[in-house]
Amino acid sequence: MPDRLDEFSLIDAIRRRASDTPLTRLGIGDDTAHLLTRGDSGVLVAVDVLMEGVHFDLSDVTPQLIGRKALAVNLSDIAAMAGQPTAAVVGLVLPRNGGANLAERLMEGLISLADEYGVAVIGGDTNSWDGPLVISVTIMGEPTSQGTVTRSGAVPGDWLFVTGALGGSLSGRHLTFTPRIAEAQALHELVDLHAMIDLSDGLASDVRHIANRSNVGVEISANMIPIHPDVDVSLSDDDRLRHALCDGEDFELLFAVNEADGNRLLRQPGIECQVTRIGTLIAEDCLLVHEDGTRERLPVGGWRHRFND
Amino acid sequence: MPDRLDEFSLIDAIRRRASDTPLTRLGIGDDTAHLLTRGDSGVLVAVDVLMEGVHFDLSDVTPQLIGRKALAVNLSDIAAMAGQPTAAVVGLVLPRNGGANLAERLMEGLISLADEYGVAVIGGDTNSWDGPLVISVTIMGEPTSQGTVTRSGAVPGDWLFVTGALGGSLSGRHLTFTPRIAEAQALHELVDLHAMIDLSDGLASDVRHIANRSNVGVEISANMIPIHPDVDVSLSDDDRLRHALCDGEDFELLFAVNEADGNRLLRQPGIECQVTRIGTLIAEDCLLVHEDGTRERLPVGGWRHRFND
Repeated sequence: MPDRLDEFSLIDAIRRRASDTPLTRLGIGDDTAHLLTRGDSGVLVAVDVLMEGVHFDLSDVTPQLIGRKALAVNLSDIAAMAGQPTAAVVGLVLPRNGGANLAERLMEGLISLADEYGVAVIGGDTNSWDGPLVISVTIMGEPTSQGTVTRSGAVPGDWLFVTGALGGSLSGRHLTFTPRIAEAQALHELVDLHAMIDLSDGLASDVRHIANRSNVGVEISANMIPIHPDVDVSLSDDDRLRHALCDGEDFELLFAVNEADGNRLLRQPGIECQVTRIGTLIAEDCLLVHEDGTRERLPVGGWRHRFND
Repeated sequence: MPDRLDEFSLIDAIRRRASDTPLTRLGIGDDTAHLLTRGDSGVLVAVDVLMEGVHFDLSDVTPQLIGRKALAVNLSDIAAMAGQPTAAVVGLVLPRNGGANLAERLMEGLISLADEYGVAVIGGDTNSWDGPLVISVTIMGEPTSQGTVTRSGAVPGDWLFVTGALGGSLSGRHLTFTPRIAEAQALHELVDLHAMIDLSDGLASDVRHIANRSNVGVEISANMIPIHPDVDVSLSDDDRLRHALCDGEDFELLFAVNEADGNRLLRQPGIECQVTRIGTLIAEDCLLVHEDGTRERLPVGGWRHRFND
């Protein structure tokens, strides 16, 4: 693909690369795409925007990995609803200089992950300017026959679980993580998921969304949190815990089930990845319980995008 | 709303302002939104990205008008399919300084237009950085019972029509135009629309999309093109024609119907806005025919986003 390229040639190049799925009634190349839906369960929709200099640096990441991540974070949102992703549209803001080549490589990474998950890239918008790269991906999906899992169904007494291990993602895993689509659906078949969220801002921050939306509290046991090997082992236990609580970008699933289902998961997880109980839902307050029994308020950390800081 | 505000407070503020519709199963505040669909006709989807310094200047446009435009250009895409818009998700990239206040005013303009068109704002993503404002809106809609109108059904002999009048939009109309949703649906009921597109890049550029996708040519009569009063009357006829052909951002509908339907439209338009026949579909080539009978190739103009220019 020549680097000097106009929008229409770029869109043609993306169209040639993108695969349709049986749900693609009309893909790239008209005023809108037309996505078919199975049954009457509607569509799940989420958007995530990644920006150069904030979410990635072009100097140390390949465009393919950036494109991959732009879709992966959206797939993770669909996973958090225990849904099945179906299609995506992509808004690109490209640097004027070298933008066409960059776009081609971005879309290579994005479409490769899309193909892996049976997701059709059905539309987009491309623009160029003298500023940094911005990618906006909107994902669509469908609920499975079990329905969706929201953040709001947890009740006191529920057990809190997490998939995988937490912390240290920003050293590289945030670019290559596996969105937990299959795991979420397997869990959804196996147990009654009361509430679920994917960990993007960090456990300490994201667990509050379940607490707020479900109108409950939570007690997390510090020594039960699975700390990822990516967290430096030479750090103190306290620092390692803080990384697991606050680093963010783990893209693991945090979910609440009743005690019976919790026990079932511990005996026989039945899903590919590690599943760990890390706490219990309580009536109010978000607490961290240490091994010696001391309790403290869960730190307000996590990776929050604060304005005017 | 305080100007020093984090993402979660901003999202709460947007959620309080946004209206649900009967199709909103789950709106702002979970990992994804859940939009219901009527029947099995699927969803129409389009995304448009607007950037500060490219599509608008914050120094001479209110944030409300920018928010309005960000949705309006997407509504125009749904109109071009003769569809009915249902919901939107919004990705915001805000300047760190004053971003919260800017976002509130943007969303005020956007949600006000959304309410007018029965569109639910069901989700979004907010970010801040030291760069310019970027807004990405993804619109969803549904086909009417007549189905969609694409760019690809025109045949030689069809008459080419345009709604409204063209040119001079960038002097202000591009911020306040009425997306042709109602007009498109009225036309779709009245006649058999073979192909349709909304004019965003300019007639000379956009008519080529119908020609390419329908595998036909087009002959446009220069003296039949309705030139908008916004085009400076002190200019030469040639310059005024060029503005109507190439300015872009008209957001009017360009469509093809057979001769019988064309005659019906001329006798009794049956829709609120002006409808003008401007040409005929032919076997190949895109031509401009002048009053004296001379023919020239339609200028390749229009507002194309060229990379590396």
